Amino acid sequence: MGAKIFSEKHQITFYETDVTNTVTPAMLVNMIILASEDQTDSLGVGAKAVADLGIGWVVTQYKMDITRLPKQGETIEVSTQATCYNRYFAFREFWVHDSEGHECVHVESIWVTMNHETRKIVTIPERIIAPSHSEKVKMIPRLSRPKKLTEADQLMTKQYRVRYFDIDGNGHVNNSRYFDWLLDALPMSFLTRHNLTSINIRFENEVQYHHIVTSEATLMTDIPDSIVTKHRITMENGDVATEAECHWEPIINHSAQA
Amino acid sequence: MGAKIFSEKHQITFYETDVTNTVTPAMLVNMIILASEDQTDSLGVGAKAVADLGIGWVVTQYKMDITRLPKQGETIEVSTQATCYNRYFAFREFWVHDSEGHECVHVESIWVTMNHETRKIVTIPERIIAPSHSEKVKMIPRLSRPKKLTEADQLMTKQYRVRYFDIDGNGHVNNSRYFDWLLDALPMSFLTRHNLTSINIRFENEVQYHHIVTSEATLMTDIPDSIVTKHRITMENGDVATEAECHWEPIINHSAQA
Repeated sequence: MGAKIFSEKHQITFYETDVTNTVTPAMLVNMIILASEDQTDSLGVGAKAVADLGIGWVVTQYKMDITRLPKQGETIEVSTQATCYNRYFAFREFWVHDSEGHECVHVESIWVTMNHETRKIVTIPERIIAPSHSEKVKMIPRLSRPKKLTEADQLMTKQYRVRYFDIDGNGHVNNSRYFDWLLDALPMSFLTRHNLTSINIRFENEVQYHHIVTSEATLMTDIPDSIVTKHRITMENGDVATEAECHWEPIINHSAQA
Repeated sequence: MGAKIFSEKHQITFYETDVTNTVTPAMLVNMIILASEDQTDSLGVGAKAVADLGIGWVVTQYKMDITRLPKQGETIEVSTQATCYNRYFAFREFWVHDSEGHECVHVESIWVTMNHETRKIVTIPERIIAPSHSEKVKMIPRLSRPKKLTEADQLMTKQYRVRYFDIDGNGHVNNSRYFDWLLDALPMSFLTRHNLTSINIRFENEVQYHHIVTSEATLMTDIPDSIVTKHRITMENGDVATEAECHWEPIINHSAQA
């Protein structure tokens, strides 16, 4: 028996889109997380039930494959399942489909449970995952690591101070904020002329209110026929908070070519 | 005959709330603007129809009176009407009610129509406001000006760089961003211990992508029995982008007093 799939619809508003009226990756992450929260709530193993055990779910990696990012006004369907898990890691998938049933985005993600006091990873309790009908496995699927920045890379760099409104109801920086910091390091002229086709993001260390983080990005020039950017967010002590790798395709303006 | 009222419901998600699970003023502004866009769209005088005339609506002031800000998971009803207008100014009201019908927020706002090319204010065309059954008046209601910062005020100051994702589909900074910049200038210890009861915000000059803005705030100490903060956002050339005045009440922790 496979994992239970949960789906919900959402109409994309103007404030969830960018200058091109396209949903932002950060808002898309918010929407998929909402679907997984609504699923676990409906199964009686939501954030509150999990917190009562003194633990919480923490995401360590997302790999998003994007056919196209939906636009303002579109009604999308967000689906999710807790595909499989082992002692320490849970593998959850998400899909975004448009109103015609075409797949827009597929997301693979890896999660751990962390003790609230010790901040240490703990064995995933059976009772919080059993209701999802998640398959117990020896090894969860392995996601590739984002390519690392090197000393030779020419960096685009911007700094961000963690703001009051970056902190969510769990008292942590909302994960979607990292997507804004990562991508904003790229110039607007690049962002408006390319479609994001995939993003692989790994969370290493958590940043806190009032921390100053540095978002570094570079365009890879040694890969023929593909447009890849590498990203890193570092903390003031030099520790890496997040690493990411993004793939892009140029936006072909058909009307201009006609 | 009064102005047409338009209402729509919205369930508040975790990503529209702050560390106290309360909707953020910025997100509330997004929700009310969505309601007015949905109303004007339904009347055939939406942003696109207005843009076809070479103009656009620009808000110059919001005055929000807040009974309480709704929480995550609540389903609210957002209502709006284009109450009245004269040659140059339109007065629009918004209400937010909770699921029991209690008023949470009332917003008064003043709008002008601006020519896209000249950036000059133009006479409001009858045909874009007539479908709203807005009342034509000599004088629209006057909103008080926010109290100004003075040289003697001790300022809390933070700087912000306008980011790619601050720009919305109109090519302008989403107005809600100013609320984040204004309020984030206050310390977290203040924000988590006080409820916002009103905000009066006036937009003077528009900021652009990559501008650095300075958000200045001060706590008024010469008003007995009330907690008032004054705010100003300035641009690099010293021009004022926004001025605001906020009223607050301390959060009484009943469980701690019991």
